[in-house]
Amino acid sequence: RFPPVACPLDDAHGKILRQDIRADRDFPPYNRAMMDGIAILQETWSGGRRRFVIEATQEAGQPQKKLRKKQGCIQIMTGGEVPRGCDCIIPVEEIRIESGVAVVRDEACVDGGIHIHRRGSDGRKGAILLHGGCRMRSPEIAIARAAGMDSVRVARWPVVTIVSTGNELVTRAGKIERFQIRPSNASAIRAALLNSGFAGVKMTFAKDTAMEIRTTLAAAVAASGIVIVTGGVSVGAFDLVPDVLKSLGVRRLFHGVAQRPGRPMLFGMAKNKTPIFALPGNPVSALVCLHRHVLTALQTGGGPQSETITLGESVPAHESLTRFVPVAVARQTASPVSLKNSGELTALAGTGGFVELPSRKGPYPRGSRVAFFPWR
Amino acid sequence: RFPPVACPLDDAHGKILRQDIRADRDFPPYNRAMMDGIAILQETWSGGRRRFVIEATQEAGQPQKKLRKKQGCIQIMTGGEVPRGCDCIIPVEEIRIESGVAVVRDEACVDGGIHIHRRGSDGRKGAILLHGGCRMRSPEIAIARAAGMDSVRVARWPVVTIVSTGNELVTRAGKIERFQIRPSNASAIRAALLNSGFAGVKMTFAKDTAMEIRTTLAAAVAASGIVIVTGGVSVGAFDLVPDVLKSLGVRRLFHGVAQRPGRPMLFGMAKNKTPIFALPGNPVSALVCLHRHVLTALQTGGGPQSETITLGESVPAHESLTRFVPVAVARQTASPVSLKNSGELTALAGTGGFVELPSRKGPYPRGSRVAFFPWR
Repeated sequence: RFPPVACPLDDAHGKILRQDIRADRDFPPYNRAMMDGIAILQETWSGGRRRFVIEATQEAGQPQKKLRKKQGCIQIMTGGEVPRGCDCIIPVEEIRIESGVAVVRDEACVDGGIHIHRRGSDGRKGAILLHGGCRMRSPEIAIARAAGMDSVRVARWPVVTIVSTGNELVTRAGKIERFQIRPSNASAIRAALLNSGFAGVKMTFAKDTAMEIRTTLAAAVAASGIVIVTGGVSVGAFDLVPDVLKSLGVRRLFHGVAQRPGRPMLFGMAKNKTPIFALPGNPVSALVCLHRHVLTALQTGGGPQSETITLGESVPAHESLTRFVPVAVARQTASPVSLKNSGELTALAGTGGFVELPSRKGPYPRGSRVAFFPWR
Repeated sequence: RFPPVACPLDDAHGKILRQDIRADRDFPPYNRAMMDGIAILQETWSGGRRRFVIEATQEAGQPQKKLRKKQGCIQIMTGGEVPRGCDCIIPVEEIRIESGVAVVRDEACVDGGIHIHRRGSDGRKGAILLHGGCRMRSPEIAIARAAGMDSVRVARWPVVTIVSTGNELVTRAGKIERFQIRPSNASAIRAALLNSGFAGVKMTFAKDTAMEIRTTLAAAVAASGIVIVTGGVSVGAFDLVPDVLKSLGVRRLFHGVAQRPGRPMLFGMAKNKTPIFALPGNPVSALVCLHRHVLTALQTGGGPQSETITLGESVPAHESLTRFVPVAVARQTASPVSLKNSGELTALAGTGGFVELPSRKGPYPRGSRVAFFPWR
C-alpha cells in the first residue's frame, strides 16, 4: 500500500485512488431533458390537448425557464433543465411545428416524468461516488471531474530501481564481443512497468562481484520504493545475490517457488521496508516472474490481474511445479509455444502472454479454462 | 496506419513497430552454458572416466577458454561460453570437488550437448526476429535490445484533439451554477487515451453555435492526426456538428450505428485525411463509443482488442441494435449493471467494462460467452 499523495486530476489516470470522492451536488444537479423536443405539463395532455403554443426555448447551459400557461410548451434541447411547470418531454420526432405551435401526434407516449433524468437519481449530494482503492480509469476520471475535483489523493508510485547483474552484460551501444550480451532484461522490465502505468524506473548494473553487487543494491534500496534484481539468485557458486542481500540485513520472505520457469525467485524486505524482488537472469524466467508476481503485487487495487483463456490443445502439467507456458492467442484460444529453454527470448515475439498451469498429475486437456497473463 | 518515425528504444514501449528487426548475430551468439557446473568432452565420459582435473574456470562475460587435456574439465557458470574442446555440461549438483578434481556421480546423465544452449538455435544472424506491425511490449523491447537496436522506427502517434461541444460545459475550476456541468467527457477520453499508451492529447471546447464549432473544429483538423468530437451529433435542431463538418468539406463515411448506446455516432474524413470521430455527448455513450470504435481503430496492430467473458445471468438482446451493457466482473464472470439512461455516469464506477451483445431475437442466456471491452 503506497502512501497517498496529492495529484492534479489531469495526471491521475492509471493511478490508485486513496480517498473517497463524494457528490458535491445532486447527480444530475437538475431535472435534465434526455431528448430534444418540447416540455409540457402532463395533465394538460391527459386533458386531451394536442396543440401547444411555444412560449420559449430552454437550451442546455441556460438558467431554468418557467412555463407561463398550462396549455403552452417550451422547446427544449437534450441536457437542458426541465422548465418550472413542466413534468415531461415529448421528443421532436412526435411533433410538427405550425407557426409557433407544436402539434403532437395522438399516438405519442406521454407519461409523467418521461425522458427526464431526475435530479439526484444517480446520487444525492454527499453520496460516495468513488471509493478509495479503485484505479483511475476513464469512468473514474469522468466521475471525479463531474464532482468538481481538480486534485485527488492517489497512491504515490514508488521509484523502481532495476539492478541487473552479470559480467557478460555490456551497456554501451555499438559492437560487442561474442561472449558479451546486451542487457535486454533491464529494458524489458522497464518497458513492462511503463506500459503498466508506472513511472520513475531506473536501470543500474553490477558485475558479478559481491562488492559491486552490494554497493549497487545498497544504493538502490536507499533510493527506491521497489527494487527488482535480475540474475545471480540461484544456488550456484556464482550466485551472489542471496548472500549479499543477507549481509545487507534484508529479511528473506521466500527463496524458491514451486514454478517453472522462475524457480529460484527470491523476495525480501529491506530494513527500510523497501521490497526486493530478485528474479532469475534467464530472459523468459525474468519476464514471467515479473508479470506473474511483481506486477501483480504492484497493481493491488487495480482490478483483475489475469484473464482466463481456453487451451486450444492439450498441455502437459508438472506433478509438483506450477508451469507457466507462453501462448499464441487467436480467437480467445491459447496455443502453447514450445521453448527449448528459458533463455529462448526470440520465441516470445509471437506470443500474447502466458498461461498458468498449477501442478497436477496428467495434462490439461484441450478446452480447459486457465489463467492467462498478457505481456505488458 | 500512422507514418514511421525514428524513436529511441528507451521510448518505444507501447508503440507499433514499423520495421523488421533482424538478428545482428546468431542467437545465442555462442554455445551458452545453461547450468553452473563443469564442461567436459562427452567421449571421455563414455570411455568410463568419472574424475576430471579442473584446468580453469569459464565465467560469463569472459572470452572462450580451451580444454587442454581430454581428461580434464573446465568449471563453468551459467551464461558462460562453452570452452573449446568441450561438448557437454555436468551440473554442479552431480559433482563434488576434491583438491582440484571434479568427481562426478556415476548416475549423472551426461549426453553430448546436454545443458548447452546452442549458438544460433534461437535464430541465425540475419533472421527476422520481429516483424513490423507488432506492438512493443516487454518481450519485443527485450528482443530489439538484444539485437543491438538503440533506435527503432515506430508508428508516429497522432496528436489527438478532443472537441467538447455544449453551452452547459464550464471549464474553469470552482463553483458552478446548477444548470452547468463540468466537462467530464473530455477528461475521461483523454485519460483513456493516455492509459492506452497514447500521448499528445489536447482538449478544446466549443459553445453550441455553428460559428464557434466550425472555428474550433477547423483548428483541430488542421493541427491534429485524429479529432474526437463529443456532443451535438444527433439529428435534433441543436445538433450542429454534422452540418458544420459538411461545411468544412469533411467526407462523411457513416452517421448512425445500429447500436445502443451510441446510435448517433458519426465518422468522417477531412480533406487533409484527418479522421474525425463524432460521439454522442451522453457520458456513457461517449465512453462506450470511444472504447468500442475509436480505441479499436487507433490500436491497429496491437494484439487482441477485446476479451471474451461469461455472462453471470441472462441479458436481454435488442432485435435490431447491438447492445453495449456495462458489467461488474468477478471471477471472470460478467454481471450486467442496469443503467437508467446513458447519462448515468456514476453507475460506471463499479464496472470493469462492457459486453457487446449483437442484435438478435431472445436474450443471451446465463453462461453465454460474449465479447468484453475493459475500461481504459
